[in-house]
Amino acid sequence: MEPIRVGVLGARGKMGSEAVRALGEAADTELVTEINREDSLRGLSEAGVQVAVDLTHPDSVMDNLAFCVEHGIHAVVGTSGVGTEELSRIQGWLGEQPRIGVLVVPNFAIGAVLAMKFSEIAARYFDSAEIVESHHPRKADAPSGTAARTARMISQARAEAELGPMPDATTRDPGGARGAEIDDVHVHAVRMTGLVAHQEVLFGTEGETLTVRHDSYDRRSFMPGLLLAVREVGRREGVTVGLDPLLGL
Amino acid sequence: MEPIRVGVLGARGKMGSEAVRALGEAADTELVTEINREDSLRGLSEAGVQVAVDLTHPDSVMDNLAFCVEHGIHAVVGTSGVGTEELSRIQGWLGEQPRIGVLVVPNFAIGAVLAMKFSEIAARYFDSAEIVESHHPRKADAPSGTAARTARMISQARAEAELGPMPDATTRDPGGARGAEIDDVHVHAVRMTGLVAHQEVLFGTEGETLTVRHDSYDRRSFMPGLLLAVREVGRREGVTVGLDPLLGL
Amino acid sequence: MEPIRVGVLGARGKMGSEAVRALGEAADTELVTEINREDSLRGLSEAGVQVAVDLTHPDSVMDNLAFCVEHGIHAVVGTSGVGTEELSRIQGWLGEQPRIGVLVVPNFAIGAVLAMKFSEIAARYFDSAEIVESHHPRKADAPSGTAARTARMISQARAEAELGPMPDATTRDPGGARGAEIDDVHVHAVRMTGLVAHQEVLFGTEGETLTVRHDSYDRRSFMPGLLLAVREVGRREGVTVGLDPLLGL
Amino acid sequence: MEPIRVGVLGARGKMGSEAVRALGEAADTELVTEINREDSLRGLSEAGVQVAVDLTHPDSVMDNLAFCVEHGIHAVVGTSGVGTEELSRIQGWLGEQPRIGVLVVPNFAIGAVLAMKFSEIAARYFDSAEIVESHHPRKADAPSGTAARTARMISQARAEAELGPMPDATTRDPGGARGAEIDDVHVHAVRMTGLVAHQEVLFGTEGETLTVRHDSYDRRSFMPGLLLAVREVGRREGVTVGLDPLLGL
Repeated sequence: MEPIRVGVLGARGKMGSEAVRALGEAADTELVTEINREDSLRGLSEAGVQVAVDLTHPDSVMDNLAFCVEHGIHAVVGTSGVGTEELSRIQGWLGEQPRIGVLVVPNFAIGAVLAMKFSEIAARYFDSAEIVESHHPRKADAPSGTAARTARMISQARAEAELGPMPDATTRDPGGARGAEIDDVHVHAVRMTGLVAHQEVLFGTEGETLTVRHDSYDRRSFMPGLLLAVREVGRREGVTVGLDPLLGL
Repeated sequence: MEPIRVGVLGARGKMGSEAVRALGEAADTELVTEINREDSLRGLSEAGVQVAVDLTHPDSVMDNLAFCVEHGIHAVVGTSGVGTEELSRIQGWLGEQPRIGVLVVPNFAIGAVLAMKFSEIAARYFDSAEIVESHHPRKADAPSGTAARTARMISQARAEAELGPMPDATTRDPGGARGAEIDDVHVHAVRMTGLVAHQEVLFGTEGETLTVRHDSYDRRSFMPGLLLAVREVGRREGVTVGLDPLLGL
Repeated sequence: MEPIRVGVLGARGKMGSEAVRALGEAADTELVTEINREDSLRGLSEAGVQVAVDLTHPDSVMDNLAFCVEHGIHAVVGTSGVGTEELSRIQGWLGEQPRIGVLVVPNFAIGAVLAMKFSEIAARYFDSAEIVESHHPRKADAPSGTAARTARMISQARAEAELGPMPDATTRDPGGARGAEIDDVHVHAVRMTGLVAHQEVLFGTEGETLTVRHDSYDRRSFMPGLLLAVREVGRREGVTVGLDPLLGL
Repeated sequence: MEPIRVGVLGARGKMGSEAVRALGEAADTELVTEINREDSLRGLSEAGVQVAVDLTHPDSVMDNLAFCVEHGIHAVVGTSGVGTEELSRIQGWLGEQPRIGVLVVPNFAIGAVLAMKFSEIAARYFDSAEIVESHHPRKADAPSGTAARTARMISQARAEAELGPMPDATTRDPGGARGAEIDDVHVHAVRMTGLVAHQEVLFGTEGETLTVRHDSYDRRSFMPGLLLAVREVGRREGVTVGLDPLLGL
């Protein structure tokens, strides 16, 4: 089988340079062009790119996508800033190009996507659920966005399963050791030199506990998900959000 | 809604007495009779039992099931010794009683069932997978049956995803520290005073790891799964094996 | 060697009945009398008790100790309510009986004592330290007393090593996910069905982390420490507090 | 206080370049010269070096040390290949230079040193002890040297405490899931993409477990130990092996 011809936009950025490396190493993809800020997008069509990977900036991503759709190039988008409004604009463009796939991926780490999905499934079967996320101490927000999203998914799954409130007899907690409550799920944030990005979702019922833990050490963890996206985007017409549907979840 | 009328066979055994307690406490079940070795099975029909829970012995379970099916009583089976041959005999009996459900459950611990299923799903996305199971030191077999089954499921999922062999440069391991290989998955067994039954399934790829851990402390951990089985068996005609289909997995 | 002749005060209580079992099973101790509320303390001297184990109540412990010291019986005290003032009263009594040992033990779990000591040692070598304690959901206080004590020991060890404040760039934590600060150490409390009593102390510096974890499942975990105390109290004249000195720490 | 004047031998190597960075950043050390293979050792004395850090090669380390001792320069040695015989040669040289300190450090990771020491202390109080070490899949040996050393220390501590054999009822283990036995301590080795170097030492007794876990992510984890060695070597005359005595252990 011919390798997929890929172009990377934002190839000099942190994610971009990892993507260049990973796409160069994979047997079934061929990196045919790298586009940086100063380059014309025409480089994509001139190089016969089949799949463009956008790892640029919220300011440029929509222009890049417009060009790709117009020129019949599938797109994988790792850039942030593609919200509900942007998604419907893209869907509009795709009316003219129904064969083209655009895959917008908020998180390329397959492990993180699976951990969140597993947490959502488990949530309905346990009396208790809490989250402990641990990160390097340079992080400004607590808890992490992933932990907050996971808490909301757990809370919704519990509500759908008509579970009552979690048992908790705490009557004295002067310092707030029970952490943040996000939609009734307690979330704890550890900040520590030596750590990178970690999350533990704990579930408990009578006599047993279940723990789903994800440890992310560096940007390379995004590459298997990025390669999966590049391989699959051509088989999915229209707009897809997240890796979940590609993982059969 | 009327509570489900339940009878427990083997009510004085370890699992049986836990089941009696749990069914008595639940709001939507009513324990209407307990049947022990010396009691006639007619006690089930006399008490108007809708769901029988068999927690007896491989020698008696098939007679018990024959009685239940004949008398239109749904059955949840936690007794071991119901293999392929027994399942097809039961299916034969159910030809006469198509409305009756028989649910055979090798493992009532919902956490264990979920952990195994999650491991099967994750297996196809990671370069490496290993299992560390830890039990009390009175256990005769290593590794545990659950660990061996999980290893086989992981191996099969990897094969279906056409993953190659796991990376492993070990050239010197005189004492066998790399553990047992079950279908190419390395399995490690810890035996330790103070522990009960624990399993950790580890997955790794570039820059990230995913861990699914299940800790089981006592027989009460089987009760949420047993209650789920009692609630659902009446809605599932025919023979069902395992909690997985009830968990929507 | 002759077994040590032991009497248990409060033998019918939860701890007492465990102690009766453990002292009966050990080869080097002989349980010669059990004293309950209605029994006279003279039973101790009549039975030739060498070591008394007090597992009664704050209201009775001082009377019991007065009797023991007067009658030349060493005492191991697991009852709470022996504070600074009580300790100096006991020391006064021992002026008359310099050969007698009284060992007051706030926590018999050797694992917990070691975990706390290890945390104190490690504290001076790491940039960051945090505590995650996890308990059953019937607990009223958060964090646990052990976690609070551990935090204070870590904080003091850091001060003695002249470490500066821990790195933490958190600027946004609307819900309090960073937990309680006890003397500058962040402490997180998880409450969950299925858990008993667990504590994880995490240390981090550039490129490495160290974790000391203690899991306590039931009252039996106090018995090795209680037996150690019974064996050692006769060799330590005067008042000793805690198992630490017996552990060579 | 004047900063300590430090020279690094082997400054271009992996450890060397990390050391150059760390010594440059620390407030109380001044990196005054870097010596590489092509440079003369006289650079050390010409630069007024007080402490030399040898991170070279087993072939050159003894010549370097001879020079340092002769010229009154304290030495911290991170190079391997300094065994019993080499140590006594160094001790001979120091007869002429009694004020000089030579500190030979097999492992600069303070966390690893503490973890090993804690394991040795805990070993005497628990019925069971096992080790699970986990590394990247490019490692040739199983188990790791650190795991084997830890197992031997645990075994010796148990023998000194006159503990009997660990409880283990395993009668069937066809594939070797119980791992390697090193001096009666079971050791398990996990190899997995995404991991770096990790070790978990597990201890169990009735009703409780204690776990000491060390995670090492990169070479930077050696720098706090290296800085400690540089600061302390001048205060310790003669030969010292390992960081343990500097940590007050």
